[in-house]
Amino acid sequence: MPLTDLFATRTEGMKASEIRELLKLLDQPEVISFAGGIPDPTLFPREAYQRAMIDCTGSTEAASALQYAPSEGYLPLRQWIARYMAQYGVICGADNILITAGSQQALDYLGKLFLDAGDTVLVGWPTYLGALGAFNAYQPRYDRLDVATNQPPAALQDAAGGRVKFSYLSPDFANPTGVSLDLAERGRILDLADALDIAVVEDGAYQALRYSGDRLPPLLAIEQARKGDIDACRTIYCGSFSKTLAPGLRVGWVVAARPVIGQMVLLKQAADLQTATLNQMVTARVAEELFEPHVEQLRAVYGARLKAMLAALDRHMPDGVRWTRPEGGMFVWCQLPEGIDGADLLAQALATEKVAFVPGGAFFADGSNRNTLRLNFSMPNEAQIEEGITRLGRTLRVAMAAR
Amino acid sequence: MPLTDLFATRTEGMKASEIRELLKLLDQPEVISFAGGIPDPTLFPREAYQRAMIDCTGSTEAASALQYAPSEGYLPLRQWIARYMAQYGVICGADNILITAGSQQALDYLGKLFLDAGDTVLVGWPTYLGALGAFNAYQPRYDRLDVATNQPPAALQDAAGGRVKFSYLSPDFANPTGVSLDLAERGRILDLADALDIAVVEDGAYQALRYSGDRLPPLLAIEQARKGDIDACRTIYCGSFSKTLAPGLRVGWVVAARPVIGQMVLLKQAADLQTATLNQMVTARVAEELFEPHVEQLRAVYGARLKAMLAALDRHMPDGVRWTRPEGGMFVWCQLPEGIDGADLLAQALATEKVAFVPGGAFFADGSNRNTLRLNFSMPNEAQIEEGITRLGRTLRVAMAAR
Repeated sequence: MPLTDLFATRTEGMKASEIRELLKLLDQPEVISFAGGIPDPTLFPREAYQRAMIDCTGSTEAASALQYAPSEGYLPLRQWIARYMAQYGVICGADNILITAGSQQALDYLGKLFLDAGDTVLVGWPTYLGALGAFNAYQPRYDRLDVATNQPPAALQDAAGGRVKFSYLSPDFANPTGVSLDLAERGRILDLADALDIAVVEDGAYQALRYSGDRLPPLLAIEQARKGDIDACRTIYCGSFSKTLAPGLRVGWVVAARPVIGQMVLLKQAADLQTATLNQMVTARVAEELFEPHVEQLRAVYGARLKAMLAALDRHMPDGVRWTRPEGGMFVWCQLPEGIDGADLLAQALATEKVAFVPGGAFFADGSNRNTLRLNFSMPNEAQIEEGITRLGRTLRVAMAAR
Repeated sequence: MPLTDLFATRTEGMKASEIRELLKLLDQPEVISFAGGIPDPTLFPREAYQRAMIDCTGSTEAASALQYAPSEGYLPLRQWIARYMAQYGVICGADNILITAGSQQALDYLGKLFLDAGDTVLVGWPTYLGALGAFNAYQPRYDRLDVATNQPPAALQDAAGGRVKFSYLSPDFANPTGVSLDLAERGRILDLADALDIAVVEDGAYQALRYSGDRLPPLLAIEQARKGDIDACRTIYCGSFSKTLAPGLRVGWVVAARPVIGQMVLLKQAADLQTATLNQMVTARVAEELFEPHVEQLRAVYGARLKAMLAALDRHMPDGVRWTRPEGGMFVWCQLPEGIDGADLLAQALATEKVAFVPGGAFFADGSNRNTLRLNFSMPNEAQIEEGITRLGRTLRVAMAAR
């Protein structure tokens, strides 16, 4: 019997992320890629990282930076995060915070914490592909979280066909749409969670990357303002340094009520003991030194690229194509006319115009809405954006004419 | 309804690792602790790490060291590991290797890969506590893997009461016993796995730390010698840099047949995307520069401590106490007379003699054999070992007299 016959049922149907597989094919220099979802490495605060690493491997620090450490995370980093969250209206202590290996790991642990097979998760339609990937290992069902309308909770509960455990969403500049929720929508998400008596998993990965418009409070801040005590809140906030400082150190965090954090610490202890000690100590130093001015610089660069992309879309997209107008993040989302398949269009765009993007179907839990695509604007510069969107417009005109 | 009522059934009964909780209490300088399981930080190759980090954050390298990277791991590190494994008789390519956040994470992913609730894992009695913790999240049953006797496979299959998926063991200087399997025992483990048609999870965490006796091949090497092709092997080898270089970077690896590695890459992609890029690049450089001479230095220091511990046990233990005589690793295992409870003894030893160890009951899947304890010799120096074992002997005499 081959070993693969021994695999658990949860592995059935697991396949490589289309996005990550795509990334491997895009190394050719002549391709203009809007397919990534990664920060521009020329903007990394390289020298601050180097200084912090030299400091952490100094003769006094190295003994702890290179050693095992507690599962909950490095205290000065948790304290920095508590101060950061306070700026967004979340008042918490270090014991409300767990450090994870990026916010992706937080999603895995939250699936592990809440989901028995057959339980339901409410997600956006579309939603972050990596969240579906993380939760899938725990064999949930998905139902649609529609923030635009007031959904009747009972109907939702029935439709889901399983026990609803949590809703998952990214209220600011969500991957893949770039769209943010307004205050009323945020309130409704919390009302729905109260009515269903479920948790809310708030993905704040892009929160700091706002280029225009007014800052809005995270769901956790709104809930805390309503209920007073963070330990009475059902919102579980996942944060990340990957989009603000650098992703290669894999440092993220979770803020939640203490009973949730306590159980997640146990899950982490069992699963990988702890996030790398060195990475936490280095991140604490870099964040302390330059977080806000550094993110201000990112906002200037990425904000200009977003502006360039929206202007190029206005100029080059044929009639019948619609797109979002985000105020931050890394993505713009396009809705193509019915009958245009995003995956087919990608094959065509790569072959004839050497331009790449991510077909949108993968972001829907049911694989629907294939006439969509995601465009990233954090990696290409403004000239590449103008040229790439020109090429994409040409490809689309050809595809639409051939329908 | 409190949020904790929404937790998945797998979280029932999860509790903090006694060992890690203990570690928090042992910071008082007057306590001599044999409770740890951690390397001596004064032996970390600090300067090599510092050089590697400066190199990896140089202007050319930083763009990739601080960026996202493929889930399978950094190719030069996988190539180094392939060469290292070849020294132990395992012939594999980089595509047989996945880099994990320590070998603990490999155990979590292997539980995720193989275990449906109710499946059986065969483990030593005792076995590594962290392996039980990692597997428990997938709700298996455990049955006893007895390497000393020739177990009839059918009886084992029946006794387990579930579908047996894999055996888990550490053939060299196992945590907690320090005991190694001889060649015949290694062969029998593989025979049993063939007869049961199950996988074998080989934990090689301590493999390089041999202080006396002859090197024995890993199970994977023996199986490959029998079957020729690594892709035909059922053994899955988990390695770690935590005991040889430093644990604080959280870098380990898995070597296995490509269909297993391929599926584990998907699991890792969904669970945390990748092991930290920087940590892999730094580890590759440090391993390349000094792995063998550095481990030779560890062998000299730890070997002398093991020798001191065995000599002190000979001198100070009362009649009726037995202990293992390991040839490597970090632990000696003691069997106390019937009726002496290891946990009670610890309380007494801390209160009256300020000496600590880990009670052995936690290492048994059924919590049996409470008259055992684990002694670590990698952290205390030789004078502390002599003094600590003297104190432990006194505590034991009092406890035995009070029976």
